Amino acid sequence: MWNLNRHSDVPLYRQIVEWIEQRITYGELPPDSTLPSERKLAEQLDVNRSTVVQAYDELRAAGLIERVRGSGTRVRSNSWNINAKRTPNWREYIDGGMLPPSPPFIRRIRDELRRSDEIIDVASGEMGADMLPQEEIRAILRDHSFDDYLGYCDPYGYGPLREIAALHLSRSRGIQATPSSVLVTSGSQQSLYLITQCLLSPGDAIAIEDPSYCYSLPMFRSAGLKVFGLPVDDHGVIPEAIAELDRKHRLKMIFVNPNHHNPTGTVLEQSRRVALLSLAERFGIPIVEDDAFGLNSFAAASPPSLKSMDTSGIVIYIGTMSKVAASGLRIGWLVAPQSIVDRLSDARQQMDYGHSIVPQKIAAHFIDSNYFWKHVDKVRDVLQLKRDRMVSALRRELPGAIDFHLPQGGFHLWMKLNSPVSETKLQDEAMKRGVAILPGSVFGSAAGYVRMNFARPCAGDIERAIERFASAFRYLEARP
Amino acid sequence: MWNLNRHSDVPLYRQIVEWIEQRITYGELPPDSTLPSERKLAEQLDVNRSTVVQAYDELRAAGLIERVRGSGTRVRSNSWNINAKRTPNWREYIDGGMLPPSPPFIRRIRDELRRSDEIIDVASGEMGADMLPQEEIRAILRDHSFDDYLGYCDPYGYGPLREIAALHLSRSRGIQATPSSVLVTSGSQQSLYLITQCLLSPGDAIAIEDPSYCYSLPMFRSAGLKVFGLPVDDHGVIPEAIAELDRKHRLKMIFVNPNHHNPTGTVLEQSRRVALLSLAERFGIPIVEDDAFGLNSFAAASPPSLKSMDTSGIVIYIGTMSKVAASGLRIGWLVAPQSIVDRLSDARQQMDYGHSIVPQKIAAHFIDSNYFWKHVDKVRDVLQLKRDRMVSALRRELPGAIDFHLPQGGFHLWMKLNSPVSETKLQDEAMKRGVAILPGSVFGSAAGYVRMNFARPCAGDIERAIERFASAFRYLEARP
Repeated sequence: MWNLNRHSDVPLYRQIVEWIEQRITYGELPPDSTLPSERKLAEQLDVNRSTVVQAYDELRAAGLIERVRGSGTRVRSNSWNINAKRTPNWREYIDGGMLPPSPPFIRRIRDELRRSDEIIDVASGEMGADMLPQEEIRAILRDHSFDDYLGYCDPYGYGPLREIAALHLSRSRGIQATPSSVLVTSGSQQSLYLITQCLLSPGDAIAIEDPSYCYSLPMFRSAGLKVFGLPVDDHGVIPEAIAELDRKHRLKMIFVNPNHHNPTGTVLEQSRRVALLSLAERFGIPIVEDDAFGLNSFAAASPPSLKSMDTSGIVIYIGTMSKVAASGLRIGWLVAPQSIVDRLSDARQQMDYGHSIVPQKIAAHFIDSNYFWKHVDKVRDVLQLKRDRMVSALRRELPGAIDFHLPQGGFHLWMKLNSPVSETKLQDEAMKRGVAILPGSVFGSAAGYVRMNFARPCAGDIERAIERFASAFRYLEARP
Repeated sequence: MWNLNRHSDVPLYRQIVEWIEQRITYGELPPDSTLPSERKLAEQLDVNRSTVVQAYDELRAAGLIERVRGSGTRVRSNSWNINAKRTPNWREYIDGGMLPPSPPFIRRIRDELRRSDEIIDVASGEMGADMLPQEEIRAILRDHSFDDYLGYCDPYGYGPLREIAALHLSRSRGIQATPSSVLVTSGSQQSLYLITQCLLSPGDAIAIEDPSYCYSLPMFRSAGLKVFGLPVDDHGVIPEAIAELDRKHRLKMIFVNPNHHNPTGTVLEQSRRVALLSLAERFGIPIVEDDAFGLNSFAAASPPSLKSMDTSGIVIYIGTMSKVAASGLRIGWLVAPQSIVDRLSDARQQMDYGHSIVPQKIAAHFIDSNYFWKHVDKVRDVLQLKRDRMVSALRRELPGAIDFHLPQGGFHLWMKLNSPVSETKLQDEAMKRGVAILPGSVFGSAAGYVRMNFARPCAGDIERAIERFASAFRYLEARP
């Protein structure tokens, strides 16, 4: 977002006029594009509404913008005027395309978070800055040469990282894989995108946990998949429905997140793992195991991965560095049969021509370093501390008002509201009070749930976040 | 590719047995997957065919693989045997999906190049290692702190890079843009992918140069677009056909590469630029300008960008660091109306959750450094030198046999064969002799053309590449 210069001699309204003029001239605001309302722009720029009114008046006087009844203020169609020129109807382009836009709730939260530093974020799915290995990565950049890294990367990923990842998966997740079955990706989101775009076709039926990871739902929908939910209780997903779903709809794939499930935080019980694998094998349905939180258990030993129990090569495994090191590296991987790895790596070339080698090299050095496990332990300790602070604050601020299953790892607290409070209204009221939360509906759940990420805020902000949330909750509870 | 240990006490055939056993056990080679032929595997591993025969015999004896008449050697269906288990039919998955595989020629060349270091590569579209700013990037990693970079990146790209890119585009390409109209991408491939996936729908008609960039053709096809070619001569694309195409098919977008066009190397003449823009404006058709080679002119002044002449915001501009700095950074950008930037940045989040911040930070420091322009000049000088060496070698080795327009910038020499030699056979024969070239057909051109990238080989390899090519050419010429 552009900023006003408050120390300039140029009056604020005039700065706004010049800024908008410039954006119209550069074609960034084509004819007929809608300007923000005066109120909204004033809020965004943190000026009085009258300042924006004055700016818009001047732009209107110059013939650049116009007020259109019922649709606010727009750039005039003839603002670049001239004879026979026609600007493309950009709106039509934006509304088209095979890949639909994200649901509005995701874009709204993203915009709000970009707009203000005052909001405490317990909505996003990442760790707080206090948990990132800044020092360690600085050391890697200082101590290692980055000499051999500047051409296009191998489409399967940087060779040494594939080797180290295979070793790491064997040691930490019990997964037997050779480097050639590891594909380096830009993270779990890209792994899921590749799988849905390359291995599934519109109309295919898939089973997922209900509720489920909020960014995968729009992706499945935009790939035209028929999505069926499997219920989740305190012991993770209940696999029994698979037989019936497969009989009726012929399931093509099952997506699960067995360890510290997002959003419910549950860990899949061992007997259910066995049942899940055996059902998938009986019906020949591949399982995609998203193990993002596999190393985020508070107990010393993490629950095993499904892939480590997979004796028939039926599981495609997805892992990431984002939940143990830094999401900003954008490093993940998947483990799959060789022919699947070939297919996905080829598709990736078509999409972005492969990953930058710099973060891959950093990731390889990091996993290979003697501070990797120290860092994993530190992340685990901080997560547990933050969970405890959030849980205490909730018990203090809202005793009896919400229920939750106490998570034993991962980032998320999944809360059931014990009052008939609308969770989308709750999201709005919480945002007004300076805390971003996610309503359960975005995960496809029944009404009355909210997800909070205790990993995201710094520990000192957790109480404040819960106070703001509690204030929003009590406000709505009093107005049913 | 896995490698044999030639210093081990374990016999080579036994190493092969263990390697294949392991890959079967790990599920990387599921039941029914095809193994390479004995001859091919022997070639890949650089061993005698008899060694592979012995290994396969042993695996067969162990019941793990079987020979199937007419379809080679396969992993046995019951190799993981056991009762009622069913492995997914991975082949069916691989053959499905919305995003089809790359054409075989692209995968074949990629595989050959991965397999052997002996092949001189004049096929790939990148610079040689001798032109990359290794020293400069080392200095950036050494001299700058990388402290603030570890969370998810802003979905529009790293803020300082957007600002520097806007300034850079203004200074070097005459493009007026504010940072908010710049979207950072992982390179031109991703920019094109975002545009085709988000702004175009199956059945939409587009016009492209004929011949055209080889990686965009499969992408357009997989997006279900109707693709119409505009002819290219020595002065670049001839825009006149646009009116007729638009009348018949209602063109939704025009894709051009006006500066040092890939593959023909031509520069679009000024009068045609004016005509192209004016036609696009008359019919309201957006132009996507791929300016990958905009800073690779041998003359001191680069031809202007179309975007710099665009007074109606009709041009979406695509730029990249790959042709002036390093393709391995994976940094590109596009400039478009704000609403388009919003739409594409949102889609990118769905695909890969944004770029790693490390290469973005390196790119920002590099463009901002006082060695950036020195490096651009160096690249230009080396390109010219390499072009001259390739042209001299061709004139010496194959006088009169081929024609070409002498490129004044960029990476590519586009050659017309004066004999009725099949260019795909020529590609095969050249590969056998250790040089990878691209036949014109992959760019959609008429028969009888070949593209060579003089930027890719180190200068010392250019003569050898042309000698190998000439030998293949003469071999085929003698066998019409």
